[in-house]
Amino acid sequence: MDYQLNAEHIERWGVFEITVRGASAGNPFVERDIRGVFTGKNESVEVDGFYDGDGIYRIRFMPSFEGGYAFKVYGSFGGNVAEGRFTVTAPSSNNHGAVRVACTWHFAYDDGTPYYPVGTTCYVWTHQPQELQNDTLETLKKGYFNKIRFCVFPKHYDFNFRDPITFPYEGAPCDNSAMNKENFGRYRPDNPENKWDFKRFNPEHFRLIENRILDLLDLGIEADLIIMHPYDRWGFSEMDAECDDLYWKYVIARFAAYRNVWWSLANEYDFMKKKTLADWERYAAMLCAKDPYNRLRSIHNGFSTYDYSRPWVTHCCIQLQPPAKPLEKIVEWRNIYQKPVIADELMYEGNIEHNWGNISGKEMVRRFWEIAQLGGYAGHGETYAHLDNILWWSHGGTLHGDSPERLKFLHKILCESPYGGLNPGLGDHRAAVSVPAFNNNAYQLMYFGFARPAYKWLHFDDINEYEVEIIDTWEMTIDKAGVFKGRFEVKLPDKEYMAIRIRNLSM
Amino acid sequence: MDYQLNAEHIERWGVFEITVRGASAGNPFVERDIRGVFTGKNESVEVDGFYDGDGIYRIRFMPSFEGGYAFKVYGSFGGNVAEGRFTVTAPSSNNHGAVRVACTWHFAYDDGTPYYPVGTTCYVWTHQPQELQNDTLETLKKGYFNKIRFCVFPKHYDFNFRDPITFPYEGAPCDNSAMNKENFGRYRPDNPENKWDFKRFNPEHFRLIENRILDLLDLGIEADLIIMHPYDRWGFSEMDAECDDLYWKYVIARFAAYRNVWWSLANEYDFMKKKTLADWERYAAMLCAKDPYNRLRSIHNGFSTYDYSRPWVTHCCIQLQPPAKPLEKIVEWRNIYQKPVIADELMYEGNIEHNWGNISGKEMVRRFWEIAQLGGYAGHGETYAHLDNILWWSHGGTLHGDSPERLKFLHKILCESPYGGLNPGLGDHRAAVSVPAFNNNAYQLMYFGFARPAYKWLHFDDINEYEVEIIDTWEMTIDKAGVFKGRFEVKLPDKEYMAIRIRNLSM
Repeated sequence: MDYQLNAEHIERWGVFEITVRGASAGNPFVERDIRGVFTGKNESVEVDGFYDGDGIYRIRFMPSFEGGYAFKVYGSFGGNVAEGRFTVTAPSSNNHGAVRVACTWHFAYDDGTPYYPVGTTCYVWTHQPQELQNDTLETLKKGYFNKIRFCVFPKHYDFNFRDPITFPYEGAPCDNSAMNKENFGRYRPDNPENKWDFKRFNPEHFRLIENRILDLLDLGIEADLIIMHPYDRWGFSEMDAECDDLYWKYVIARFAAYRNVWWSLANEYDFMKKKTLADWERYAAMLCAKDPYNRLRSIHNGFSTYDYSRPWVTHCCIQLQPPAKPLEKIVEWRNIYQKPVIADELMYEGNIEHNWGNISGKEMVRRFWEIAQLGGYAGHGETYAHLDNILWWSHGGTLHGDSPERLKFLHKILCESPYGGLNPGLGDHRAAVSVPAFNNNAYQLMYFGFARPAYKWLHFDDINEYEVEIIDTWEMTIDKAGVFKGRFEVKLPDKEYMAIRIRNLSM
Repeated sequence: MDYQLNAEHIERWGVFEITVRGASAGNPFVERDIRGVFTGKNESVEVDGFYDGDGIYRIRFMPSFEGGYAFKVYGSFGGNVAEGRFTVTAPSSNNHGAVRVACTWHFAYDDGTPYYPVGTTCYVWTHQPQELQNDTLETLKKGYFNKIRFCVFPKHYDFNFRDPITFPYEGAPCDNSAMNKENFGRYRPDNPENKWDFKRFNPEHFRLIENRILDLLDLGIEADLIIMHPYDRWGFSEMDAECDDLYWKYVIARFAAYRNVWWSLANEYDFMKKKTLADWERYAAMLCAKDPYNRLRSIHNGFSTYDYSRPWVTHCCIQLQPPAKPLEKIVEWRNIYQKPVIADELMYEGNIEHNWGNISGKEMVRRFWEIAQLGGYAGHGETYAHLDNILWWSHGGTLHGDSPERLKFLHKILCESPYGGLNPGLGDHRAAVSVPAFNNNAYQLMYFGFARPAYKWLHFDDINEYEVEIIDTWEMTIDKAGVFKGRFEVKLPDKEYMAIRIRNLSM
């Protein structure tokens, strides 16, 4: 046997990995090919493997069912065909499978457990020194977020002048030693100092990302992987179609088997001037063809919203910066696309000069609640000025803001809502009534935002009893107002950011 | 001589009034006619007089020039023709004339003094018991506002169940004693209990309003008179065209001569279902024909914005409630209409249940500043729940909120800006740069709203010196940051609601 298995028993939705020895001469990334077929009682799946350097090839597979599986590895990788069997066991208690779209506008894990995304963004945290990555993981352990957006490619932008710890290709980067706040805009992807072989990946770069994906899996956090983005001084954003496709194939082969991976085709796709809509559709088609698990797929925009009605798009991941786009766009997008809407960039809590990076924690939390109330989901980010230019939004590290604790509280409230997620109600345009499955009499969550009514009259039926609670979304308190029926008045404090939760006790 | 003059010497832009005795039999309001012609060196003006009851007719005239004037009163009022002369003297120091449109989007008095509206709304304060009216005047003396919107007709609505102290017509109102919070919506203008003679005005009703207009004049406050509105249980909103026209003629004859009067054709014109656009245009035409002073004219909307491009409209008076309409509409309206834009209802500071009546003082002040920054003006209102249902927004009285002091501060800042008013700048879409006459190098006021940058880099020329101040719009402080040229950094506190003011010291 010239292959190794990571295990002979693997849990459902876990990763089964076969390591095979093969040829290392020439350029195995383009000259060699390796595939695996995995067959159980309920599925037969073929996946691409990938070259991991030093004559090592790997094939990863996520089984969707329990029971016995057979596998077969073949291709032109310069090694022997490998065959064997393994067993898929029941998932462990924290393993609910992958997140899928559920109830049109919402999400649930494969096992049916609802998933309410409360995500954050740390664009290039996996490219930072190991110590900083550890800090980020320590912060993430606090459980504020259950999704994180980050990039496979390194980032070139204000506050992001240092080179990453690894590069995705063999070669050498342009010299960045003379770069500073004033002149960084002059460093372009076509800088002739960049010397890369876009057909030879650096496996170490991808391996480090995989380790972080696994760390996130342990923490119950979804890895919303951004495959391409425009903030580049190295040329990764302007490769030709052949190299792009090679990159996509490699990324899918390496990452697709991890159940917490989501595919974000791009961050701000429309800022990548060398890519056309045909390019994005080609990447998407490749993803649909090569990811057998149908992981969640979306694409994030700068100014121009993508056509999220495209069939490959599973959910909307939209930049939503008031006032250019008001929060109420959520409802419009829900209606147009009939898909979940995540406002995955609504400005960041912080104090930097950039107009997208200096809202307060209160305003961040307000936006999350308003969006939840409108039947959407939101994404956090943090940009506090820092002496060493370590900003959570890009580098990870530690959090300095007021919002994360409150977002965790919002997540708790969402988890306590009836299954199916929140949808916008029909009532009052300010304090929209949110109802699951449009059943006004089952559950309502009214968020008042800036509005500070001292009282609120409600009118339910005279038959059922309704438990009413007052939620202070900032102080994170829940107070019982009583049990009512018919028409009744609820007293509220003269404060912003309050909510009322109403539960039908008969249901 | 069977006439009296209020004075033989009147100051420019003051009111010259002739009182004439005439017939009282029949219905003088419709059967009699009285007019005056006033001729000075620079103008000859004909105005309608009006019947004031008890055989008394009055004619009011505002001279726009100094010097000698001749007058002649004639008509079918059943008295003799009156003729005479009077002299117009220079205006007293607090008399700047009437407010006019200036610099396309702004206002100035007749004498050229800029006028920056910071208005409030007390819809029916002049219909309240005298003591409450006195409280309102005491509050207004504090100088928070320089404009107030109020109605000629009484108001029927939530919190407004009591009858007014006077009615505009002879007759009797429907019984309101059984009206309460629950059933007030059932009281309709066509209630047959109403017994009115829409052709016989009650002069006392109009006289009381005139007294308040004069009180406001003393305080330097513009009286933004709302001539019609939909909140009615008496039928005043559903009179026929003949009675409407009689009303308009009477209102114009009585009020037009007061230099602080602005005409607001309606509050929420589109909620008056019995009136057509042709009706509004007819009233406007009458106003243009019969008001020789061309006082400011506008019309306020509910949901449907009026066509403010109509030539008779001098400025936009628009309801602007976020999020249905975002504050940024100001810029669009400025561009479309090329007229001043006043957002004369952007929700009220308060704590009532109604979604338009419970924003915080902070949010009120933020909206004023954002709108000022966008080159528009805003209107205040206050709706704090009150045991006796006395809410500033409708009844006047005393203020309970946090915003008025800050609005006064904003007015001070506006008065300190160079002549011409603020216009939106071209820069950054969040903290828009406002510049008078689009000269970036003369003056800039940057308001940050929710944004809390800890620093801001600015770039001016290397020749001129710029004085930079940090304004805390909530704490009402102005701190000098220094004098700079070229490219420089301004440090800011990590707070919301800050502004930077930059003045070119060479200009």
